[in-house]
Amino acid sequence: MPAYPDTLIACVQMHPVMGDVAANLARSTALIEEAAARGAKLVVLPELANTGYMFASRDEAHALAEPVPTGPSSQAWIALAQRLGIFLVAGITERDGDKLYNAAIVAGPRGYLGTYRKLHLWGDENLFFEAGNLGLPVFDTEIGKLAVAICYDGWFPEVFRLQAMQGADIVAVPTNWVPMPGQTPDGPAMAHSLAIAAAHSNGLTIACADRVGVERGQPFVGRSLIAGSQGWIVAGPASHDQEEILIAAVNLKQARHGRQLNAFNHVLRDRRGDVYDLMLGSGYPRLAR
Amino acid sequence: MPAYPDTLIACVQMHPVMGDVAANLARSTALIEEAAARGAKLVVLPELANTGYMFASRDEAHALAEPVPTGPSSQAWIALAQRLGIFLVAGITERDGDKLYNAAIVAGPRGYLGTYRKLHLWGDENLFFEAGNLGLPVFDTEIGKLAVAICYDGWFPEVFRLQAMQGADIVAVPTNWVPMPGQTPDGPAMAHSLAIAAAHSNGLTIACADRVGVERGQPFVGRSLIAGSQGWIVAGPASHDQEEILIAAVNLKQARHGRQLNAFNHVLRDRRGDVYDLMLGSGYPRLAR
Repeated sequence: MPAYPDTLIACVQMHPVMGDVAANLARSTALIEEAAARGAKLVVLPELANTGYMFASRDEAHALAEPVPTGPSSQAWIALAQRLGIFLVAGITERDGDKLYNAAIVAGPRGYLGTYRKLHLWGDENLFFEAGNLGLPVFDTEIGKLAVAICYDGWFPEVFRLQAMQGADIVAVPTNWVPMPGQTPDGPAMAHSLAIAAAHSNGLTIACADRVGVERGQPFVGRSLIAGSQGWIVAGPASHDQEEILIAAVNLKQARHGRQLNAFNHVLRDRRGDVYDLMLGSGYPRLAR
Repeated sequence: MPAYPDTLIACVQMHPVMGDVAANLARSTALIEEAAARGAKLVVLPELANTGYMFASRDEAHALAEPVPTGPSSQAWIALAQRLGIFLVAGITERDGDKLYNAAIVAGPRGYLGTYRKLHLWGDENLFFEAGNLGLPVFDTEIGKLAVAICYDGWFPEVFRLQAMQGADIVAVPTNWVPMPGQTPDGPAMAHSLAIAAAHSNGLTIACADRVGVERGQPFVGRSLIAGSQGWIVAGPASHDQEEILIAAVNLKQARHGRQLNAFNHVLRDRRGDVYDLMLGSGYPRLAR
């Protein structure tokens, strides 16, 4: 097996300020520059990193949202990725006409690569945003095939599975994790088990960049995490309340070998599509009540 | 919300003796009787609990395998479930004509309920067994809807998803976990993250009964676990090397309420079938090479 070089990847755990886009762009720029200075070739920012999360109304969300990639937040981040020669995945409040999306912009050394729109909306996001309508795109880059999932998307194992089946090597996860029922700041984080399981069962690196802080009464979990392609934690968890940068050296190309677990088993090729794809594709089983 | 009574469930972690069916039936009977005496209404035994796991040849496996439910191991376990008034899920080496299956028998107070055959074969199992051909059955019982997955089946999130979508309340997992690459006896067990994630993202109780011991050079992980329907551990992990019985009180009926996470979100109804069922059902995406 040939030796492939490692790639440094970074998750920026930050504390966006609600509604202060200029401050969030300035702070994210400083943290991205620091990550790049430490060698990161891919940097992931949290969900809705340019605006904050706890919109009080659709009016407020609409006023803060911007077109992607022509708006000022997109343009600032694209220029930064180009200047630093890195790939960047950043959560952004997107406006497309009068529709709003909880989105992520993907940019690289040669500029804008594309947009992902969150497929699974959480709680009051349903009051402000439309559900994503761009599917699960996978972006070809020279560091590997890059996919994106946002926060509650990670509760749906279908997301990571469909990304892996399209050949994704790494999933960037901008997130604003909130505590799940029964979860404490010091105990196990359910989001970690979900990321670890998805990484292991799909042979994917999963890089989760969470936010910290309490915003309009809503606490966030922090504890950003990078799970390697065998599922084991390769960076983090970060603290539950501090801004910080997680960096891991991952081998996104060699990881594809790891999906072959032994002479017989491969985590994707062992799927029993004859059983479950047919069950799903035919609409059976219906959700039991 | 009405109050539903708890149900006690048990995972029997045991050490089968390779090839000694009589000894394994006797030992499992003693442990099942103990679990029932402690109040368990459902008892789960490990994978291939009547024969051991490390067959040296297909001849050996064939000689040890039995028809289900007419063979002596099935008959002994069915009679035991009837006598004790419990539900029992037990891993068994099944022979159907000249075909062998890594199976589990499901029995209850009124006798034989059905069989599950492992869909995803691990390693050298491919030399001895046919892959399961009975789909993912869900058994209606008075304690709740009961499904079964065996060991490596749990590496495929589709399994738990399809069980939950059929209304399953609990999945019994007879297993013979082996260490995954990078896993140590004292560090985190990857199988635990997989069970916790599947329980949480599907609102399912998942009861994993593992074996212990080293058989013909193969060490097993032990550390049986019961994950409750919110994903949190409700019993275990058991030790990595001792026989023991894990018991948890779970509320299999109330758990269905828990799938509704808030006014907007339900772990199953939030699935974006419009995106991923169509992608899977149409055969797209093909597995990328």
